[in-house]
Amino acid sequence: MKKLILSVSLIAAGLSVFAQSPGKGKQKQPKNVIFMVGDGMGVSQIYAGMVANKNTLNLERAHFIGFHKNQSADSFITDSAAGATAFSIGKKAKNGAIGVDADDKPHRTILEIAEDKGLATGLVATCSITHATPGAFIGHQPKRAMTQEIARDFLATDVDVFIGGGRADFNQRKDGANLIDSLKVRGYQIANSIAEVEKVKSGKLAGFLADKEQPRFSKGRGDELSKSSKTALEILKQNKKGFFLVVEGSQIDWGGHANDTDYIVEEMKDFDKVIGEVFDFAAKDGETLVIITADHETGGFSINGGSTETGEVKGAYTTGGHTGVMIPVLAFGPGAEAFSGFYENTAIFDKMMNALKLKR
Amino acid sequence: MKKLILSVSLIAAGLSVFAQSPGKGKQKQPKNVIFMVGDGMGVSQIYAGMVANKNTLNLERAHFIGFHKNQSADSFITDSAAGATAFSIGKKAKNGAIGVDADDKPHRTILEIAEDKGLATGLVATCSITHATPGAFIGHQPKRAMTQEIARDFLATDVDVFIGGGRADFNQRKDGANLIDSLKVRGYQIANSIAEVEKVKSGKLAGFLADKEQPRFSKGRGDELSKSSKTALEILKQNKKGFFLVVEGSQIDWGGHANDTDYIVEEMKDFDKVIGEVFDFAAKDGETLVIITADHETGGFSINGGSTETGEVKGAYTTGGHTGVMIPVLAFGPGAEAFSGFYENTAIFDKMMNALKLKR
Repeated sequence: MKKLILSVSLIAAGLSVFAQSPGKGKQKQPKNVIFMVGDGMGVSQIYAGMVANKNTLNLERAHFIGFHKNQSADSFITDSAAGATAFSIGKKAKNGAIGVDADDKPHRTILEIAEDKGLATGLVATCSITHATPGAFIGHQPKRAMTQEIARDFLATDVDVFIGGGRADFNQRKDGANLIDSLKVRGYQIANSIAEVEKVKSGKLAGFLADKEQPRFSKGRGDELSKSSKTALEILKQNKKGFFLVVEGSQIDWGGHANDTDYIVEEMKDFDKVIGEVFDFAAKDGETLVIITADHETGGFSINGGSTETGEVKGAYTTGGHTGVMIPVLAFGPGAEAFSGFYENTAIFDKMMNALKLKR
Repeated sequence: MKKLILSVSLIAAGLSVFAQSPGKGKQKQPKNVIFMVGDGMGVSQIYAGMVANKNTLNLERAHFIGFHKNQSADSFITDSAAGATAFSIGKKAKNGAIGVDADDKPHRTILEIAEDKGLATGLVATCSITHATPGAFIGHQPKRAMTQEIARDFLATDVDVFIGGGRADFNQRKDGANLIDSLKVRGYQIANSIAEVEKVKSGKLAGFLADKEQPRFSKGRGDELSKSSKTALEILKQNKKGFFLVVEGSQIDWGGHANDTDYIVEEMKDFDKVIGEVFDFAAKDGETLVIITADHETGGFSINGGSTETGEVKGAYTTGGHTGVMIPVLAFGPGAEAFSGFYENTAIFDKMMNALKLKR
């Protein structure tokens, strides 16, 4: 019952944001933006999670919905690098490119611009933090495989918090450098487990939860994304000028590549749990815009049977790769209405920049 | 250039509707509702049309987007009958059922309720007018195959305009009755070709464009849906109390069943042409709410390659039947904002009823 009342009041909070927000020029500007990427999360992936969760997900609390078109500069089917770069720098890039435009020219990312403007910034993922999606918000490299170079790019920014896998790119490097030492010199607290991450309550934090990639949810990762996101929010919210945080549910994509419906469903439910927690934060805070989307769809996944009573999902696939279909964008909180409609993936950069009153 | 200016002004009209509509209780109420169903039109079907049309469709002018969940009363995968019945009476029905609830109990449809309230009403389709989707707005039968009984149900309503195939259900009947004679007695003008349809400018109209189903767009049907919709709007708009019109792009579904991407694309483009014309009408009129959705997705269709420059679409499929995925709802005009968010397909009935201030 308590849960029901809480849920109703949160819906009411969402709606009151809606009621306030459009209207004649008197829109509420968010102080914080949380950008949540479910890698490979198309409409069927969302719906698979919803069915498995008995016909409901937290993300349904998002009141404004759009679609983005995700072709990259050189391919009808984007990869995660070009997809994330469209979000991070607002330019179409070639597949594989990280934080550079179609001519391999680097552009400052929204995270870097936010950092320069005095906002706190963070990156949280369930994959290596140097992987394409988180990497594209900090790195500037022509190829996503250059993860050791992307690790070095972290030292060129002042990002406050980053938590994920990828420790080896920092301390087991071809060039022999130990970038974890360099992070310590720059004032970062280093956490090497989720328990250590949770102990950090303020300051700068580099959390390494695996040498390379973290395991999938049911194979040992558990609720690390939830705990990492909570720690990141706890730290970032202390900045009075606001914050910009990226949270990636990285492995929905890997479930799609594996054509493994159980994998998709468990990662989708984990990501949605964090979405619910982030919405709770935003609804309480009242100054936080939350955007949820994916870079692309993976698997040509469809739902050809199932049950909303038992949570069974019968998935089917047309590919082990990505597809080109447009991707939903869900928005919650002040400024959410700007994300209604149809647009290119690069427009998400522009809309988030506008929301935070940032300029290139 | 003229086209560009027109297009910009129409976008502006759409946005001004948006700017007016939310806010504090001072929402503009629509006088007319046009409900457009692309049968079998999931996200990939929409996107296939967009790619084929070089990265743009008229439906992108819809500023508010939602998703509906379309499970029927007895199946995770709905058919078109139960899908359309959810829209027409706001109740979940068993697959195959037309205008009756899960206990086969008939309920008045929104079209019948609108008619009773003095609104003008109409049905336009590119399939037999007694087929599941149009049929569910007038008929009340436990089985969709009872098309001759559904034809008789047309005589129990006062629908102003209906145009589609299905003439044989009216004049080549097992019971020997000639329902076309009965329609004439009730004051309907009978049109037996699209040219005859176009000549009618007012009054009641029954347009029969085929004995059974119309051919597909490229096999002789051409722009009949556009012409039928224009005639219907011309007639219905003369009613000072407003109107409720259903327009179905029926054969997107048939392209999905046939796993025929060219078929999907040509039907999608035809439907979108009519969407553009309907939006133009609504933008000029200022009192018309347009809702676009599908009953379900067909084919487990994905887009695994293509080009927005050449319009090539490489489709792939997981089934020759329907899938269970949630379906986008696009809304344009006064009251459109009520269609944002996630809801059951039955909620579309409630939202349209509210928009027209109708009660069961």
